[in-house]
Amino acid sequence: MKPTIGLIGVGNLGRPIGMNLLAAGFGLRAFNRTPDKVKPLADAGATAAADAPAVAQAGGIVLSILPDDATVERIADERLMKTLGPGGVHVSMSTILPETSRRLAEHHARHGVTYLAAPVFGRPEAAAAKKLWICTSGPADAKARARPIFDAIGQGVYDFGEAPGAANVVKLMGNFIINAAVEAMAEASAVVERNAIPRADFLGMMTQTLFNCPVYQNYARKITAANFNDVGFTLALGLKDVELMMKTAGASRTPLPMGGLVRDRLLSAMAKGREGIDAAAFALGAAEDAALEWFKK
Amino acid sequence: MKPTIGLIGVGNLGRPIGMNLLAAGFGLRAFNRTPDKVKPLADAGATAAADAPAVAQAGGIVLSILPDDATVERIADERLMKTLGPGGVHVSMSTILPETSRRLAEHHARHGVTYLAAPVFGRPEAAAAKKLWICTSGPADAKARARPIFDAIGQGVYDFGEAPGAANVVKLMGNFIINAAVEAMAEASAVVERNAIPRADFLGMMTQTLFNCPVYQNYARKITAANFNDVGFTLALGLKDVELMMKTAGASRTPLPMGGLVRDRLLSAMAKGREGIDAAAFALGAAEDAALEWFKK
Repeated sequence: MKPTIGLIGVGNLGRPIGMNLLAAGFGLRAFNRTPDKVKPLADAGATAAADAPAVAQAGGIVLSILPDDATVERIADERLMKTLGPGGVHVSMSTILPETSRRLAEHHARHGVTYLAAPVFGRPEAAAAKKLWICTSGPADAKARARPIFDAIGQGVYDFGEAPGAANVVKLMGNFIINAAVEAMAEASAVVERNAIPRADFLGMMTQTLFNCPVYQNYARKITAANFNDVGFTLALGLKDVELMMKTAGASRTPLPMGGLVRDRLLSAMAKGREGIDAAAFALGAAEDAALEWFKK
Repeated sequence: MKPTIGLIGVGNLGRPIGMNLLAAGFGLRAFNRTPDKVKPLADAGATAAADAPAVAQAGGIVLSILPDDATVERIADERLMKTLGPGGVHVSMSTILPETSRRLAEHHARHGVTYLAAPVFGRPEAAAAKKLWICTSGPADAKARARPIFDAIGQGVYDFGEAPGAANVVKLMGNFIINAAVEAMAEASAVVERNAIPRADFLGMMTQTLFNCPVYQNYARKITAANFNDVGFTLALGLKDVELMMKTAGASRTPLPMGGLVRDRLLSAMAKGREGIDAAAFALGAAEDAALEWFKK
């Protein structure tokens, strides 16, 4: 008999994660600030909790997947800590700063609760297909205990030791490499198109040959179609992530020149009112800078 | 009976290409400015030519794979044109400017020779394994005639139409995306290392998951080992390529901000006397800027 898991945050990632936990035979108590988002999970057998602490039980496991650092810190309040209590584990899957994870780990430890950083790579469709990649850092026993959960929602776990913030650094720097790849494809596409070569032909070759991996294939499809309305992740959240990357690089005194460039693209896209479309839309900037017309279609 | 092909340029790519042509049953006449480089091919059955025009025969096919635009233009002189003559085809595989290809195409046409741009993606080990990717642009009949040659040396051909420079634009912009990927890995690795996470663990995860494609895997291996002495392609040649990218973007009035950043890395590496080591060594700059010690080993 599998245990009942608490889930805080039922957004684009939280919902498919919850669905896969139910499908794997876990019990589930779920909370979301906007309660109607919990309904699909409740219909599939989860219990809708009235507030965040109500998802927890003494010594149990709670997952959280939330939009930003402030929300994670607010959710992990005294009430949640006291309900989880000694032996409890909080698996924190949000994309947040390593320093937030460090602070949270200390805060949890004061209540005998274990904090486990476990941010994930994968867009909502990957989450639905149980194809998340999970990076972990934290105490070994919590990682062992959370393993059946990870196996139910992802395709692999990579561990980065005991330091609470390590997995968050990895997640942010992985996102940075993704952003750099999207910007590079966008810049190169602008050049080929100004040379009368269809971007579809160029990106088609690239993603079938040198860059035949899902990140390039997915974003090349978006850049080719110039359709950013299928929103896995908004541009506003994309900017938040880039700010976290820059802050993490800054805190460790490491220049990140490509990060600055991507940040400027995102800021310009925000200035143009693109907050709500898909984060990959920062790639439009390269086309606009070259006065290409396709993005207006 | 397969025809005899002329080959001009027997360097790190020309040699394995020539070997594969011989292995596929083509005859081969080869020329290189430094004659002893031709010896391995001659030992395998090729004829060593005394000069470039001597590799050609009337109406035949000549391949060239040379280090830069000036060398290709010098080689494609009146004597070569007259020897190849009407019906002859020059398959130009070097990484050169699209405008050089356009000029060469006109020059060839004046002699009844067809110029076919066919630059290739792949390091020497890929060439040896018949795993080059070939992009072509030029007249359809020349492409059809060259097809058995491409099949003998590569794993696939992507065509970009009739315009002589199109394939060169694609090749340069593909190289640009590779350079951007290397720089992104180098910057991210500096950040993770400043956060006490081994770069091998970080790049290991990335190249097994989101970026499980050869470009990332090969360069991650180099960046992790910090060994740039296994030279597939020198840093000096890398800078030459980046200058061609910038020139191509500039000629088509397209900003290429990441290109400028990579160019600065290469210039700095040249300033530090790294001309002769592998082009991926521009990635050292990110580690140096973060005062990491590993690159000194």
